[in-house]
Amino acid sequence: MEGIHIKAVDNTLLGLASERLDSLTKPRGSLGRLEEFAQRIVTITGNPMPPVFEKKAILVFAGDHGVVDEGVSLFPREVTVQMVHNILTGGAGINVLARHAGADVVVIDMGVDHDFTDDPGLIQRKVVRGTKNMRKGPAMTRNEATQAIDTGIALAREYANRGYRLFGTGDMGIGNTTPSSAIASVMTGTPPAHVTGKGTGISDDSLACKVSVIEDAIALNSPDPADPLDVLAKVGGAEIGGIAGLILGAASLGIPVVIDGLISTAGAIIAWGMEPAAADYMFAAHNSVEKGHRVMLERMGLKPILDMGLRLGEGTGAALAITLIEAGLKIYREMATFDEAGVSKELA
Amino acid sequence: MEGIHIKAVDNTLLGLASERLDSLTKPRGSLGRLEEFAQRIVTITGNPMPPVFEKKAILVFAGDHGVVDEGVSLFPREVTVQMVHNILTGGAGINVLARHAGADVVVIDMGVDHDFTDDPGLIQRKVVRGTKNMRKGPAMTRNEATQAIDTGIALAREYANRGYRLFGTGDMGIGNTTPSSAIASVMTGTPPAHVTGKGTGISDDSLACKVSVIEDAIALNSPDPADPLDVLAKVGGAEIGGIAGLILGAASLGIPVVIDGLISTAGAIIAWGMEPAAADYMFAAHNSVEKGHRVMLERMGLKPILDMGLRLGEGTGAALAITLIEAGLKIYREMATFDEAGVSKELA
Repeated sequence: MEGIHIKAVDNTLLGLASERLDSLTKPRGSLGRLEEFAQRIVTITGNPMPPVFEKKAILVFAGDHGVVDEGVSLFPREVTVQMVHNILTGGAGINVLARHAGADVVVIDMGVDHDFTDDPGLIQRKVVRGTKNMRKGPAMTRNEATQAIDTGIALAREYANRGYRLFGTGDMGIGNTTPSSAIASVMTGTPPAHVTGKGTGISDDSLACKVSVIEDAIALNSPDPADPLDVLAKVGGAEIGGIAGLILGAASLGIPVVIDGLISTAGAIIAWGMEPAAADYMFAAHNSVEKGHRVMLERMGLKPILDMGLRLGEGTGAALAITLIEAGLKIYREMATFDEAGVSKELA
Repeated sequence: MEGIHIKAVDNTLLGLASERLDSLTKPRGSLGRLEEFAQRIVTITGNPMPPVFEKKAILVFAGDHGVVDEGVSLFPREVTVQMVHNILTGGAGINVLARHAGADVVVIDMGVDHDFTDDPGLIQRKVVRGTKNMRKGPAMTRNEATQAIDTGIALAREYANRGYRLFGTGDMGIGNTTPSSAIASVMTGTPPAHVTGKGTGISDDSLACKVSVIEDAIALNSPDPADPLDVLAKVGGAEIGGIAGLILGAASLGIPVVIDGLISTAGAIIAWGMEPAAADYMFAAHNSVEKGHRVMLERMGLKPILDMGLRLGEGTGAALAITLIEAGLKIYREMATFDEAGVSKELA
């Protein structure tokens, strides 16, 4: 992987941002987290008056997983391809919510077990044709994991060059809560049973099976938490690597990135493990129903914006959170100050 | 007050709405509260496929409070007038967030202690020229309270006639967290100390004073919780009555209404006390920092949508929540079904 180094966000502008917020016609701090979002966009972009996000994109990374052979998902494997088509034609949940947020949707084939031919709009960056079954060996080679991350980094640069200044992360891949929970377990040192949920909605029995599949995969492959690339290769997935790369690329460019749910956060914790300062550029969109999600967010010190009982993925939570983050920026930019509006300040 | 009767929402269409949601290309229930919002809009409107909200408005009810003579607020009384002007010229927080949500802002003078003359856009419906100091006697007469509610009901009808199909509630009035906490205390039977917060940001000493002002006002006036109009008159305010009326009017027309924070919820609990079925038409926008807010929401069985540390009022939380409620409706309307998209369903 090419050398990428993420600098911690420079907080020099924080005082100026706070001063601006306190000059606006509202009691100090009364817009709560909206004010926090505005401050973070100032420090992330290094711009004392950041422009509104004209172009924003949710990048949906797709991949298949050999571990579905173990019966960890409620949906058949072919649904990954079908849902990629559904997203490309605008009918999926992420399409609806991205339109609502004024964001574009970009779908990237990172590792789908299918040969796409002429699929308008699909970004073809296939690293693997589905991962291998991690219960029987490593999901990917170290080279494949590196390639997945490099692909994400390159996409961040490409879309930044096209004028995009806010990214959301998304995923599509039947079975991908299984590697995501495995990553959560390894990277946070938490037993699989505490970070594994029902995904698309499997039964209690299937959940017990899913937990033991993850336990077996970790025992067999011995991924090293101090080496996030090793974790990604052995118990991860190509789309998770793409997400990690997108985050690293965005952070290196001073572009904020909105992290969706469990799978996206698995990508985020890989990026954070490599470059801890990457967390400075992340917004945690929501608190997913999947219990491994919160464990990873807490480890990275991120506080989710929404708590809506979501567990769809695709970037749907990121799309919703984007509207709130933008609201914070607009407050910062558009509200009148006490002086401008001729409003009296607090009593001494 | 004219006789208004609110019917409980008819849940006949609930099965149909659930069927539609389960036919969409996502795991069942995986969009959590967005699905709940869609179901509620179906049952509230009685329409199996409700249109998107073309016209939506946040009605900001303004009023002054005699109780500010007791030193309960950090800001001087004249700020109510100044902020009404700020909202009319588009510089307040509610203007920014309503624009973001695509909603219009309507400002109504219900009881400001100022004679407005030529103020473009201001809806003049003055019921009182500021309430009286409730520590020394009733804030309003029963007739004034009735007039405030009737004004809100009439506004709901007027804006419904103009094509508005979604309302948000907002408030502006220096000192109005004090009557709101008093209402919360009386209507829920909770001691004032447990439902009174720091409003715009008063000190601990001032908070203790504010609590004792509320205790005194309740002891002196003996408002009857079984008679919400009595509570509104004795320890309420004209803008709170306007909000209660707007909610009753909206509910009577089958129009959903998004309730902002503490002050709006004080209006909501007056409406609910008169017509308990009114709660069927309410969406609780957020969980305010003001502790009386949650107590009232729980009493009405409402679960807040957002938790963003907001305490500004004006309808700002309602504006944010509207974008999420609309997202739920768009999911319901716009997502492709499994059949349409050719996506395989769950394994048997």
